[in-house]
Amino acid sequence: MRVLGIDPGLVNMGWGVISVNGSRLSHVANGVCKSGTGALADRLLALHIQLSEILATYQPDTAAVEQTFVNSNGAATLKLGQARGIAMLVPAQAGLVVGEYAPNAVKKAVVGVGHADKAQIAHMVKLQLPGVELAGPDAADALAIAICHAHHAQTARKVSVGMSA
Amino acid sequence: MRVLGIDPGLVNMGWGVISVNGSRLSHVANGVCKSGTGALADRLLALHIQLSEILATYQPDTAAVEQTFVNSNGAATLKLGQARGIAMLVPAQAGLVVGEYAPNAVKKAVVGVGHADKAQIAHMVKLQLPGVELAGPDAADALAIAICHAHHAQTARKVSVGMSA
Repeated sequence: MRVLGIDPGLVNMGWGVISVNGSRLSHVANGVCKSGTGALADRLLALHIQLSEILATYQPDTAAVEQTFVNSNGAATLKLGQARGIAMLVPAQAGLVVGEYAPNAVKKAVVGVGHADKAQIAHMVKLQLPGVELAGPDAADALAIAICHAHHAQTARKVSVGMSA
Repeated sequence: MRVLGIDPGLVNMGWGVISVNGSRLSHVANGVCKSGTGALADRLLALHIQLSEILATYQPDTAAVEQTFVNSNGAATLKLGQARGIAMLVPAQAGLVVGEYAPNAVKKAVVGVGHADKAQIAHMVKLQLPGVELAGPDAADALAIAICHAHHAQTARKVSVGMSA
């Protein structure tokens, strides 16, 4: 099973694909989509094109997008929301169910605690995906989201198997 | 020239298409896209499909989306932002330039003042587009955005003609 994780952002949209084989995780690819400096509609279109290409290239079976931190800066929240709309849309267009995880759930899944800085996340992502070369902190976050989604999917499967036994 | 106006919203996304012939405006179509009650990704996908069908059916030459009112409710702003991302994306995918207007600019263009309630906007939209049947207040707002965009496009054209003379 291939899992796509997306860390939504208007300027930089991190993405990462991992492969899940039982409890074994391995890295497939990671990177950062850039929206450039044009008009907002063109920037959203650029993100849509890049994400669609990633879906077509790596053919993930499931996807997850980080839940955006809502802060008191309404204009920043709105920008992030618009980019996040594209991040949610593209996997849905490919027929995937799109999971959503709060930042502290992602950190807990990857680092073991709900509070961790970006350096810790990148360190733990590297430990769990041997040989990975990270395209940057947004790509590391995206891989962390994919790892979190893989853990939750496995838990859900175990529970489901247990219930059917 | 056909102008598409969009009033973005996650639950109800108003849309309206008008035809502009010199200074004469006429109504083409209006309606409201609904996202239903499913998962967020599915709701955004539903809006994308409906808006794409509207673009394919009415073939507008230009589009405009209302600038979202940013309030202190971060969660509401985020929801609106995600829907607005789809509203900006779809016309851009059709190769259109997408205008953006603040709510008070739209009101000023249609009602003559920057502050007007929904009933006033619907009344003035009906006066300016004889025979129109409004699908609801969100559709009326979307037609108002299209009227505002038509006015601005005409002003831009006049200025451009004046400058080239």
